Amino acid sequence: MTSAHVYIGTSLDGFIARTDGDISWLTKFADANAVNAYNEFIATIDMIIIGRGTFETVLGFPSWPYNKPVFIMSRTVKDVPADLREKAVVSSLAPIELLAHLSDQGFKAAYVDGGKVIQSFLAADLIDSLTVAKVPVLIGSGLPLFGSLDTDLNFEHIRTSSYSNGLVRSYYKRSRND
Amino acid sequence: MTSAHVYIGTSLDGFIARTDGDISWLTKFADANAVNAYNEFIATIDMIIIGRGTFETVLGFPSWPYNKPVFIMSRTVKDVPADLREKAVVSSLAPIELLAHLSDQGFKAAYVDGGKVIQSFLAADLIDSLTVAKVPVLIGSGLPLFGSLDTDLNFEHIRTSSYSNGLVRSYYKRSRND
Repeated sequence: MTSAHVYIGTSLDGFIARTDGDISWLTKFADANAVNAYNEFIATIDMIIIGRGTFETVLGFPSWPYNKPVFIMSRTVKDVPADLREKAVVSSLAPIELLAHLSDQGFKAAYVDGGKVIQSFLAADLIDSLTVAKVPVLIGSGLPLFGSLDTDLNFEHIRTSSYSNGLVRSYYKRSRND
Repeated sequence: MTSAHVYIGTSLDGFIARTDGDISWLTKFADANAVNAYNEFIATIDMIIIGRGTFETVLGFPSWPYNKPVFIMSRTVKDVPADLREKAVVSSLAPIELLAHLSDQGFKAAYVDGGKVIQSFLAADLIDSLTVAKVPVLIGSGLPLFGSLDTDLNFEHIRTSSYSNGLVRSYYKRSRND
């Protein structure tokens, strides 16, 4: 089956965006080190899964930010703009069904992005690796990275890198031998 | 004024205990490295502030776990057991008033422990250093370390240590020049 991978930045208190979607407190830590680490990660995946929220956010960007095939997990998004039809498709499949479908299409490794999509994959225990870059600021409220689970999920810590701007990035793999 | 310091362990999703208070998922990471790091921290403080929740928890321990003077911040706890009267006192003061009182008494550095007490000190921007040890497990729900804030709080990352059991401990100092 296609493996699924999270790579994301959060505040010290675990938010991925303010309640209004603002991520300027996070993006100000996006220096050359961060870009290099992101590019290293992107080189390991061959497609991207996002949700409606992320899709609507990136539609507001100056240009489409993804250079690999994108699946938009949504039951409400019906279509994508004409200029994106080569780049993005909408799917209403549940996480496990989507990964099976992606596997049938030959995809090896999916980048799972966006808070609710990540939470739905974690709730189904479908995330194989989790990389979290923490910036040294408490924002107090916002959109949380993690959500509720039916059972504990144990991870193996692979490595942690920290940088002079205060960003600390930890790499984990799901540990299923427990 | 007496400085205030947090030193605590959390799950990867930021909880300090399960909803029922269980911390066995956390304490199983308390190896010799963790004990050494805790002892290093404890050597830097000269008193401890806890809340009612932590007080009631430690009353259930085989022996009183603190070897420095303890202030129990509570408006509902009225008294402490007779055998603890040399070791612990109850205070109904708010965080800023309590620190002023502690300063008058000659205390230099307070260890602020327990979720709600930590949150009340952070909300008043009274925490000077924050050390968080993260264990590599998502528990999905529980008592959160952090709460809401009126304003962002920026920290300076001092250092991060990681261990073979997967624990990652990051040391931060409050950065107020922003």
